[in-house]
Amino acid sequence: MTIAPALEETYGQKIRARREHIKMDRDAFAGALGVTPDEVTALEENSGVLTLDRLTSIASVLGTSLPELTPEFVSDLDGGVRYQLPGDNPVIEGHRGDTEYYTYNCLVRTRTVPKLVPLLLEVNVDDPEKAAFNVGHDAHEVIYCMEGDIHLKWGDKENPKEVTLPQGSSFYIAPGVPHTLTTTKGSGPGKVISINF
Amino acid sequence: MTIAPALEETYGQKIRARREHIKMDRDAFAGALGVTPDEVTALEENSGVLTLDRLTSIASVLGTSLPELTPEFVSDLDGGVRYQLPGDNPVIEGHRGDTEYYTYNCLVRTRTVPKLVPLLLEVNVDDPEKAAFNVGHDAHEVIYCMEGDIHLKWGDKENPKEVTLPQGSSFYIAPGVPHTLTTTKGSGPGKVISINF
Amino acid sequence: MTIAPALEETYGQKIRARREHIKMDRDAFAGALGVTPDEVTALEENSGVLTLDRLTSIASVLGTSLPELTPEFVSDLDGGVRYQLPGDNPVIEGHRGDTEYYTYNCLVRTRTVPKLVPLLLEVNVDDPEKAAFNVGHDAHEVIYCMEGDIHLKWGDKENPKEVTLPQGSSFYIAPGVPHTLTTTKGSGPGKVISINF
Amino acid sequence: MTIAPALEETYGQKIRARREHIKMDRDAFAGALGVTPDEVTALEENSGVLTLDRLTSIASVLGTSLPELTPEFVSDLDGGVRYQLPGDNPVIEGHRGDTEYYTYNCLVRTRTVPKLVPLLLEVNVDDPEKAAFNVGHDAHEVIYCMEGDIHLKWGDKENPKEVTLPQGSSFYIAPGVPHTLTTTKGSGPGKVISINF
Repeated sequence: MTIAPALEETYGQKIRARREHIKMDRDAFAGALGVTPDEVTALEENSGVLTLDRLTSIASVLGTSLPELTPEFVSDLDGGVRYQLPGDNPVIEGHRGDTEYYTYNCLVRTRTVPKLVPLLLEVNVDDPEKAAFNVGHDAHEVIYCMEGDIHLKWGDKENPKEVTLPQGSSFYIAPGVPHTLTTTKGSGPGKVISINF
Repeated sequence: MTIAPALEETYGQKIRARREHIKMDRDAFAGALGVTPDEVTALEENSGVLTLDRLTSIASVLGTSLPELTPEFVSDLDGGVRYQLPGDNPVIEGHRGDTEYYTYNCLVRTRTVPKLVPLLLEVNVDDPEKAAFNVGHDAHEVIYCMEGDIHLKWGDKENPKEVTLPQGSSFYIAPGVPHTLTTTKGSGPGKVISINF
Repeated sequence: MTIAPALEETYGQKIRARREHIKMDRDAFAGALGVTPDEVTALEENSGVLTLDRLTSIASVLGTSLPELTPEFVSDLDGGVRYQLPGDNPVIEGHRGDTEYYTYNCLVRTRTVPKLVPLLLEVNVDDPEKAAFNVGHDAHEVIYCMEGDIHLKWGDKENPKEVTLPQGSSFYIAPGVPHTLTTTKGSGPGKVISINF
Repeated sequence: MTIAPALEETYGQKIRARREHIKMDRDAFAGALGVTPDEVTALEENSGVLTLDRLTSIASVLGTSLPELTPEFVSDLDGGVRYQLPGDNPVIEGHRGDTEYYTYNCLVRTRTVPKLVPLLLEVNVDDPEKAAFNVGHDAHEVIYCMEGDIHLKWGDKENPKEVTLPQGSSFYIAPGVPHTLTTTKGSGPGKVISINF
């Protein structure tokens, strides 16, 4: 079982800060929540008994969103740096239909920049005719072509733009743009470094 | 008891999206969490049983922060607008020491802009010598002087800057700047509109 | 003639920082711009002779946007605060068609938060039938009804939502939502505080 | 000579939009600038004659920052994608003291994400004792170790943290953290992919 990291603040501290920010006193908050003022005190000092349903009611009463009441983890960086050795890379098969389309080697990540997802991506299909599109994703992506002749298709999958990019090429894909990678016909597998952020 | 608003997405949907974004499959996720793959499926399809402790473990396993897994409420706006009638303004006494220093009339708020906190503020103390500082807060603040001669002090409370501002004046206070309002000596109470954002 | 405020950095410093950030040396930059390396040095040390056309070419060569090369002013705040006395409020007539629809009393502004535009708005038309819509704007807006019975219409101007809001009411309008204010039929002019941010 | 890209809007359009946003009419703006209303019209319709000094005065009069008046370029993406072939990578020698410390192969960039600077970095020094620190920079950085045994030092250069990272390792460096790369003693040069964003 994993050990969860420490939090920067407790839920109780976040709740209290919000309550005070909107100038609501303890009694009014207790009344709106349907609890006693003592229960409010317990909640703000020790939020261990808090459930998600209760948190949702509290956010509603405090006129705020749920993420605004949710604390951050303490940083997982060591002096601003985090590294990962190759033996620790999780390796995932990415299927599209019946095909092992990509193999994902997951590189270093950090909770402090959750959108950063760096991957060493093995491109297993060597036929642009068999390209399978994704639907685009919410992140910027920059790719370096490390091995093989990479064939990129993007845009409308019925009528895509496309280009062949030899080893050493690099490209950027904006958020939301559908795209897919193969290698050129019959050229064997390829490898790219893909950084999503 | 308040009825909590609907969520834009479920926790389960947020968890699944994150898991897929980092290319982790269900089995690896189940293993890391110490549950069965069927329990992962249940969690992602129906997150009702989720506790805060479990959510914290999940965020840790998925290498992300808690707010990133926390859904937003659906908007509380009606066609982009939300209004509040004066009879619905919560009224709160704001004490500093033994004094009813301010009276807060809380104006309209919306969950879609949680940092927006508009107040009609009654300034009850009419003696700058009795000014009581706050410690600054995390929001921008803009104030319009509606009634009375407002006396503003700010900065270092031992050696503050200060100015008297007649009705019709306005001022801006940057985040983190300690400040306090009274009216001028013996002039009776005042009123300001204070918008925090 | 106005005296322009000082800049946090010069254009030359911004250009040099960008050039170094993308690992371009002075000679390569000079070649791409069609100038000599000495002219690059002069440009980076003393950007006084820079024209907008030249700045545009430079941004293009450095693969960046124009705002990224444009410096900020030093702050116009005094210890984090800026105030404006009522006699210094610019007063502007806002016409819609032939009507003096609003009168704008412009309250305090600061360069450090350019989107903040606080107004004391006189609502001159007392007939909701004569309401003239704006097309929405890019800012959040929160309004406090200070005098008169304010009539708000918003959304589709052919088929608007509407509400009458007495003195002491407040409302929020999201960015991009077309809206308009009058007072109720025959009730005379009104006044609101409008904060755009 | 480079051809500068088209702008999304003109400076004149940005100036007019700001002027209208703060409810300033043409005459008041002309008076504050010390020009005639006709010159304001010319400026807003055809900003070609604008100098940086004039732009600075205008920003001051309009109570805004310079970047707020500065237009963006039209996108340099083709359907959301931009790529660069390896023969088009600018190659720059990066000296520290007398040493050719790094060789930078500059990968694809886009004006729409100016902070994104992807590099193929050749690490020329194979002795951690000769490591030369940078002072940290304003961007997030993620690195993949492509060739050689990379030796990373970071933090306080008098008393750094350090680690050796074999081919296939990856690491993240937060903004502002001083750091430096060599390869291990006597192991020859190395190569990494470095993505700054």
